[in-house]
Amino acid sequence: MEKKIKKIEDLGEFGLIKHLTSDISMKHQSTLKGPGDDAAVMDYKGKLVVATSDILMEGIHFNLIYTPMKHLGYKAVIANLSDIYAMNAIPKHIIVSVAFSSKLTLKQIENLYAGIRLACDNYDVDLAGGDTSTSVTGMAISITAIGEGEKKRLVYRNGAKKNDLICVSGDLGAAYLGLQLLEREKKIFLENPEVQPELEGYDYLLQRQLKPEPRADIIDFFRKLNAQPSAMIDISDGLSSETLHICNESGVGCKLFADHIPVDPETEKLAAEFNITPLVAALNGGEDYELLFTVSPGEYVKLKGNRNIRAIGHITDPDAGCNLVTHDGSFIPLQAKGWNAYGSNE
Amino acid sequence: MEKKIKKIEDLGEFGLIKHLTSDISMKHQSTLKGPGDDAAVMDYKGKLVVATSDILMEGIHFNLIYTPMKHLGYKAVIANLSDIYAMNAIPKHIIVSVAFSSKLTLKQIENLYAGIRLACDNYDVDLAGGDTSTSVTGMAISITAIGEGEKKRLVYRNGAKKNDLICVSGDLGAAYLGLQLLEREKKIFLENPEVQPELEGYDYLLQRQLKPEPRADIIDFFRKLNAQPSAMIDISDGLSSETLHICNESGVGCKLFADHIPVDPETEKLAAEFNITPLVAALNGGEDYELLFTVSPGEYVKLKGNRNIRAIGHITDPDAGCNLVTHDGSFIPLQAKGWNAYGSNE
Repeated sequence: MEKKIKKIEDLGEFGLIKHLTSDISMKHQSTLKGPGDDAAVMDYKGKLVVATSDILMEGIHFNLIYTPMKHLGYKAVIANLSDIYAMNAIPKHIIVSVAFSSKLTLKQIENLYAGIRLACDNYDVDLAGGDTSTSVTGMAISITAIGEGEKKRLVYRNGAKKNDLICVSGDLGAAYLGLQLLEREKKIFLENPEVQPELEGYDYLLQRQLKPEPRADIIDFFRKLNAQPSAMIDISDGLSSETLHICNESGVGCKLFADHIPVDPETEKLAAEFNITPLVAALNGGEDYELLFTVSPGEYVKLKGNRNIRAIGHITDPDAGCNLVTHDGSFIPLQAKGWNAYGSNE
Repeated sequence: MEKKIKKIEDLGEFGLIKHLTSDISMKHQSTLKGPGDDAAVMDYKGKLVVATSDILMEGIHFNLIYTPMKHLGYKAVIANLSDIYAMNAIPKHIIVSVAFSSKLTLKQIENLYAGIRLACDNYDVDLAGGDTSTSVTGMAISITAIGEGEKKRLVYRNGAKKNDLICVSGDLGAAYLGLQLLEREKKIFLENPEVQPELEGYDYLLQRQLKPEPRADIIDFFRKLNAQPSAMIDISDGLSSETLHICNESGVGCKLFADHIPVDPETEKLAAEFNITPLVAALNGGEDYELLFTVSPGEYVKLKGNRNIRAIGHITDPDAGCNLVTHDGSFIPLQAKGWNAYGSNE
């Protein structure tokens, strides 16, 4: 059968993965979850092994002009740990493959690994193996994180039910504004290398962009309170995109309330400078590594006391669609305008 | 403390990995084997999880001028499965991350995945997840293979003992000659695109280079005969380099007998055309994906009937060094002149 879609740009990242893997059937009964969630889930004699992998390319995912190597290593690990936590599982091991371009010095590579190792130390994870190579072009970093989970605790994207509350940890949009700040200073630097960068007063935004942390604390909190989300995903591409993933996978609709979406004052301040609506940064910005999850009203009672968790909406029937409700009560359909490595949304 | 080594080229791939990971200590008791073997080994409640990862870069590990995408996908998987088999474990899952440059068509990417999936089908492995991205430069493929092993069956690089026999599966040097053939035809093609490639009569060499197979059959044979190697590694960088890995890790010396090293007649024929000594191709060529292992004389008795296994030498005291014994009885010290992505040996 002729395939009608001819261009990668038309598919986007998720479309491409789906396109390439949709008709794959799993051979092993032990493969509990294949492509299409934050991580794969495999049953090795009762203990569930959860694994995920990311590939980061120079010029696409990071820019060495303003990304210190140590931060790059740290963030590359964090992005993967976040995916494991988003399964309500605990990361235990990482495997790191890096291809270095010849322009890098050994000191720079050591700094990259210092960042990788710091992330491992902070989150009690072993760097268990990997591969290094050279690159004739840019640098590439691929990290696989492997962790363990319990069958009754694991949370997929497809478990959201009508009337479940939609919750988010922390605040959103800060990493995106941090990136805008770095891009502005890069431009100024390239035009006039004498000018000192003006980064003061935006420590939080820079930290969110350069040294994000995954929400291990939230997963720990769930465990201690014996609270069980119905669906969960980490916010790497923006709230809109991730909410749509949960709704599409679960076959439900949703209402998100704009007034409830948490945005830090520093994010609001810089957004005003850049003439960006803070809400847009929260919806489409990405790289926040916060957790987006749904819980039944009964389970939500357990979580109410945690100031790092905010209910921002609820799940509806699928025919109600996926909407953002603005403060004047109007409905705006959610759109996946998140950061897209394929450029189709830009 | 100031590090004296300043250049990546001085370290080479193995030196670099060692340099970057040598002082890492494992936090989890469950991490049975960290960096430095074919794969990491993790204990998930008694069942051992074995994982390995490779990163392949365009222009370094593959050349799209003569590598069909389907073969590239197949080989990228095989290289990782071979590492799992080299632990005497069984691969069960792979996670695939690919960054595509914009020059590639969707059809090409589909072909890549067709190759990946064919390898999965042939070796009963599930493609359990992964990531895709774009690349502003060349293509990058990173595959993680995950498998399972039994504690008493797993074979590391460090178990070789004095008087153990050194054995190799299949034959060596063919993949290297296949590469020379493709390089020659590429050159002719670039000089004169009208000329048809002369690849006939070398099917075996081309297959070894473009569509290699890992030695699942040997691992199966060990299991059926209840035979246990003492050390094992897969031959991806050449016999010399891999033998030295086993000897260094095991703290032993060795004698390899030149006359016993298996080389296919087709390899010999093309080697003559290229004025290459077949033995040199076997020692330094790489990409054969055969298994190199050591066994005690007692265990070797079980393996004698298998025509795909050849004893090529034996383990000695460490102070005897690691030597190749030529047919006239002279000793040549083994050197790791295998294929090196860092170019320091070239």
